[in-house]
Amino acid sequence: MKHYTSIHDIDDMGNWIEEAKALKANPLKHVELGRNKTIGLLFFNSSLRTRLSTQKAALNLGMNPIVMNVSGDAWGIEFGDGTVMNGTTAEHIKEAAAVVSQYCDIIAVRAFPTLTDKVKDESEQVLKSFVKYASVPIVNMESATGHPLQGLTDALTISEHAQVSKPKVVLSWAPHTKALPHAVANSFVQAMQKMDVEFVIANPEGYDLNPEITGDTPIFHNQKEAFKDADFVYTKNWSSYESYGKVIKKDSDWMITKDEIGKAKFLHCLPVRRNVVVEDAVLDSDSSLVIQQANNRTYAAQLVLKKLLENL
Amino acid sequence: MKHYTSIHDIDDMGNWIEEAKALKANPLKHVELGRNKTIGLLFFNSSLRTRLSTQKAALNLGMNPIVMNVSGDAWGIEFGDGTVMNGTTAEHIKEAAAVVSQYCDIIAVRAFPTLTDKVKDESEQVLKSFVKYASVPIVNMESATGHPLQGLTDALTISEHAQVSKPKVVLSWAPHTKALPHAVANSFVQAMQKMDVEFVIANPEGYDLNPEITGDTPIFHNQKEAFKDADFVYTKNWSSYESYGKVIKKDSDWMITKDEIGKAKFLHCLPVRRNVVVEDAVLDSDSSLVIQQANNRTYAAQLVLKKLLENL
Amino acid sequence: MKHYTSIHDIDDMGNWIEEAKALKANPLKHVELGRNKTIGLLFFNSSLRTRLSTQKAALNLGMNPIVMNVSGDAWGIEFGDGTVMNGTTAEHIKEAAAVVSQYCDIIAVRAFPTLTDKVKDESEQVLKSFVKYASVPIVNMESATGHPLQGLTDALTISEHAQVSKPKVVLSWAPHTKALPHAVANSFVQAMQKMDVEFVIANPEGYDLNPEITGDTPIFHNQKEAFKDADFVYTKNWSSYESYGKVIKKDSDWMITKDEIGKAKFLHCLPVRRNVVVEDAVLDSDSSLVIQQANNRTYAAQLVLKKLLENL
Repeated sequence: MKHYTSIHDIDDMGNWIEEAKALKANPLKHVELGRNKTIGLLFFNSSLRTRLSTQKAALNLGMNPIVMNVSGDAWGIEFGDGTVMNGTTAEHIKEAAAVVSQYCDIIAVRAFPTLTDKVKDESEQVLKSFVKYASVPIVNMESATGHPLQGLTDALTISEHAQVSKPKVVLSWAPHTKALPHAVANSFVQAMQKMDVEFVIANPEGYDLNPEITGDTPIFHNQKEAFKDADFVYTKNWSSYESYGKVIKKDSDWMITKDEIGKAKFLHCLPVRRNVVVEDAVLDSDSSLVIQQANNRTYAAQLVLKKLLENL
Repeated sequence: MKHYTSIHDIDDMGNWIEEAKALKANPLKHVELGRNKTIGLLFFNSSLRTRLSTQKAALNLGMNPIVMNVSGDAWGIEFGDGTVMNGTTAEHIKEAAAVVSQYCDIIAVRAFPTLTDKVKDESEQVLKSFVKYASVPIVNMESATGHPLQGLTDALTISEHAQVSKPKVVLSWAPHTKALPHAVANSFVQAMQKMDVEFVIANPEGYDLNPEITGDTPIFHNQKEAFKDADFVYTKNWSSYESYGKVIKKDSDWMITKDEIGKAKFLHCLPVRRNVVVEDAVLDSDSSLVIQQANNRTYAAQLVLKKLLENL
Repeated sequence: MKHYTSIHDIDDMGNWIEEAKALKANPLKHVELGRNKTIGLLFFNSSLRTRLSTQKAALNLGMNPIVMNVSGDAWGIEFGDGTVMNGTTAEHIKEAAAVVSQYCDIIAVRAFPTLTDKVKDESEQVLKSFVKYASVPIVNMESATGHPLQGLTDALTISEHAQVSKPKVVLSWAPHTKALPHAVANSFVQAMQKMDVEFVIANPEGYDLNPEITGDTPIFHNQKEAFKDADFVYTKNWSSYESYGKVIKKDSDWMITKDEIGKAKFLHCLPVRRNVVVEDAVLDSDSSLVIQQANNRTYAAQLVLKKLLENL
């Protein structure tokens, strides 16, 4: 593995999950592996869990994290090819990525989609530019179309909490006040497709995810039907993919309630808007795994960094 | 001690001061104590001394500090119970505190008061929410009503510089252009009440601090009278407590001058507005202890972190 | 050397370059030198290379870097003497510098010029205030009139790539959309004046640099003439020094092209606006040394920090 940009970079999900569990059982075992190595965490967007858990993962491997809020700490980066840079951007990604590669042994990047320009978002310009112009491994800390550190975390969490051999997992859309990206949902779909689970998606009409990603996965437009006999309900809002970036449904009938999920375990990547996406009664109950899930962010990131360090 | 949120968490001021002096004499003695432990420093408000000295204290104990400006680096946090989160806050403190607890062995928090809503400020919502929902020790880096790292620093500094067995210490209000919190003054009062000093407060009428905090401490409304035979003059502006958060006095007759303080040593927590709070002649003289005081911030924080680490 | 504020602090350029090359060959040789020492990086302005390379340099020496964006993380700093601080600044440099000195073994500062007030800019108020009021070594991470970490980097890079004993080096002005400082150009001039090179400057009329800095260095107002037989073309925009801070030439005839530089190597401190300062064909060719140059920022900073640490 040269980079970790997508769930597709996981060659064997079963092995990775076992390795992540081993790291979780003994987080400091490899604390000498990253000694005197530096990871640069570049944020084009806000972050709490990813910011902290990726630093913690790096520290568990003995690495030195260097954190940068790109626009706040530096300036606008240009991604266009052949641009006459007489506008607001002050440095081209060709230089920025190559330069940062000289100070960091690994570069991790967060860059959200526009949600207005589907073609641009799907081109993954920021992430792919780093892969192209950097000379060190790139880690995707959430890009326009994927959040593979989250997807790996979710696979680990479901594996830890499964009580039957082939649990039923539902990814359910839920309402939100703002237009949100598809990245978490996409990576979750891809992660579940690599696991031995019965996996279905529930979302309102008009909210089907990119069919190239969902593939053969069954999609229900009736939430109740999808939730039947579910062991895990993974919830996430996303804006419409067909009517790209639009919020076309605002009522709360898809909000997750205690009644609806029944005995299923509840998962969410966080941050979550209480009583909009899911009611308090779910989050405050034993059914909720969201805190354990957030904890696993450390070990998912640590596994990825360990694999990249071993390959340097 | 499970948390350090208030001067009340100091069980024996005399012992703590001696321990802090020992740390100052040998700051790296315990550099292995915090090895591979992480402290998260969460700032809801600006900071210079606290930001740097708490990091330095953690580094002296071998810890890894992770710093976050909460609103700039992440997003608005919701503290209300049962809120339908369809507004500007994106994550509830229930999740945020529990999640950060998984990446950090200790969490330190700075959150200033509104100065418009006394009931809300005195409820210490932010600090108490972290104590309630986090699963690791919480350190108060200045909350709505207290700044106990500063109070401990001040007790240490006065102990170091006292030349008589029971020195006279005056806390004096001084003018300022803006409405400021009561936190530093409150914690200083509480710290002095735990020391063997003759302690009085001087402030204009209408500026008495919360009587539940000042208790039996004599309050003078005549600055000159209060300063008589003082060994230490500790100066700080605060807005009115009675007319909550209001600036009711703007003239400069309470500004601290060289004449007024005489032979007394001058203390201030900093930052200080020169020639508004205190004249240059005081700050630039040997009477001023403000720099030595700032230095002691490191050892006060280091003592608190050491005690929390030993208790993990 | 007590501080590193200017190229003049380099006592022997030849020796320094050899030492920097030795550090580059073995960056971790002195990783114990800075153990448990802290460097404070204070940014009054944006930074990418300096921010990352100075941290990397400190980490290579085993130091703990603490980074602060002064205005974002803290508040406005007052530099005036005797000011009644009833305006927007909340802390005087006298306190700020003295206080930070107590938490950091070395302080590095970046503070750009106003470009509107030549007298103020040339007084180097921010940098000199830190030198005056701090009690630890100060490193200039780009001040109003100099960028000596860049100048040392550039000398190292030219030394590494020189293929003749006394190469011809041209510093050429190039166009830009904004008014930029003279700091990089000044330090480059001073660095070249300390090297065994044939050094000339090319800039349009009205753009001559401060004559006290350029001294005897030949200045050409004809770019083509200056570039004749050049081995290195170092390019940088700066605003007018005579018409202080003004942009008096906006056309692109001084933009650097492949044709113009011929066989010369191209250098630039970055960030660079493509197709405004220099065309893609230069930056994307083997003639460009800008990435190797950025890499050398680490070793220039590491050499400076090593010398300061050895002198603590």
